[in-house]
Amino acid sequence: MMGMNYCSECGKSVEVSIPEGDNRPRHVCSTCGAIHYQNPKVVVGCIPVWEQQVLLCRRAIEPRYGYWTLPAGFMENGETSQQGAARETLEEACARVDVEGLYTLFNLPHISQIYLLYRSRLLDIDFDAGEESLEVALFHEHEIPWDEIAFPVIQESLRLYFADRNRGVFPLRSGTIERLPGEARRFRILLDDDPA
Amino acid sequence: MMGMNYCSECGKSVEVSIPEGDNRPRHVCSTCGAIHYQNPKVVVGCIPVWEQQVLLCRRAIEPRYGYWTLPAGFMENGETSQQGAARETLEEACARVDVEGLYTLFNLPHISQIYLLYRSRLLDIDFDAGEESLEVALFHEHEIPWDEIAFPVIQESLRLYFADRNRGVFPLRSGTIERLPGEARRFRILLDDDPA
Repeated sequence: MMGMNYCSECGKSVEVSIPEGDNRPRHVCSTCGAIHYQNPKVVVGCIPVWEQQVLLCRRAIEPRYGYWTLPAGFMENGETSQQGAARETLEEACARVDVEGLYTLFNLPHISQIYLLYRSRLLDIDFDAGEESLEVALFHEHEIPWDEIAFPVIQESLRLYFADRNRGVFPLRSGTIERLPGEARRFRILLDDDPA
Repeated sequence: MMGMNYCSECGKSVEVSIPEGDNRPRHVCSTCGAIHYQNPKVVVGCIPVWEQQVLLCRRAIEPRYGYWTLPAGFMENGETSQQGAARETLEEACARVDVEGLYTLFNLPHISQIYLLYRSRLLDIDFDAGEESLEVALFHEHEIPWDEIAFPVIQESLRLYFADRNRGVFPLRSGTIERLPGEARRFRILLDDDPA
């Protein structure tokens, strides 16, 4: 989280206090009274599919440099979630997709993010590594580098995708991923009830 | 959108420019170099149901003071979308719910918001108007004040809900709501393909 020391409206100091009519601490300007809310960010991305293969990108940036992930990133103002998912796929994998249904929605409350991943169909295989990727490749299910996936939300979405593909149905999958206390990267995945 | 004139980290002036490696204008501090991203906000809420009735709140705040809405509001850092939906229902309607499946996801790109509305079951009918509500009431389908609903996203979600209830299925409904140019409050609703 970025530091919040000064008011972005008037440039004077902010303090942390509970505004009148509110019930939680906010960054409030002690000069002009502006309240600076901080809210979760939406990450949008694709599960790009070509025949039986899924496209993954190997990250050229931190965190998790060198690990594989699905094309995804922060949703921008003024776009829809599908437009954002397609944009990230173009930026990170130079790949054009037809965005289909929403497939997974995961809450990551420990970092105040919400992930929306869409099933999508690659329109061609003229993909290439974008600036934030070391390489981009297609993988059959048995080729997925499970131990080198960047984030648990990506690993779990891929796991669900292949299981549902084998069943032939793609209900919305949703849940929460919690980071467990301690130095090690350990997580707990809580899936919401299967809607099927 | 709040004014972004000063850097919240160091208090000096920000300018609008495209950072290196980026592709769109951001607010960048000309002194310390901090980049201040602005991203869409998530609104979470419930469609609280008691037997055949749906709970609505009459707004005690602007915008749309006096109009009816579903309990919903900005998702907060550190919570899940379901926790946020339940929290807003408690705050605005003093009502306790069991949050069930995600039912509608609407993009509102003209105001950079994404709405997530959950079907939910009222645990009791000891509800009451919260601070942001003038009154709270249960409505049968034929009693819904369609001409006094606060926002098109709420009206469309209610319309879909009653249609799906009559069919006996609740697939995820998603789409985009665009505000049409001009002074009048006119909108275009684009539904994504029916998943059924």
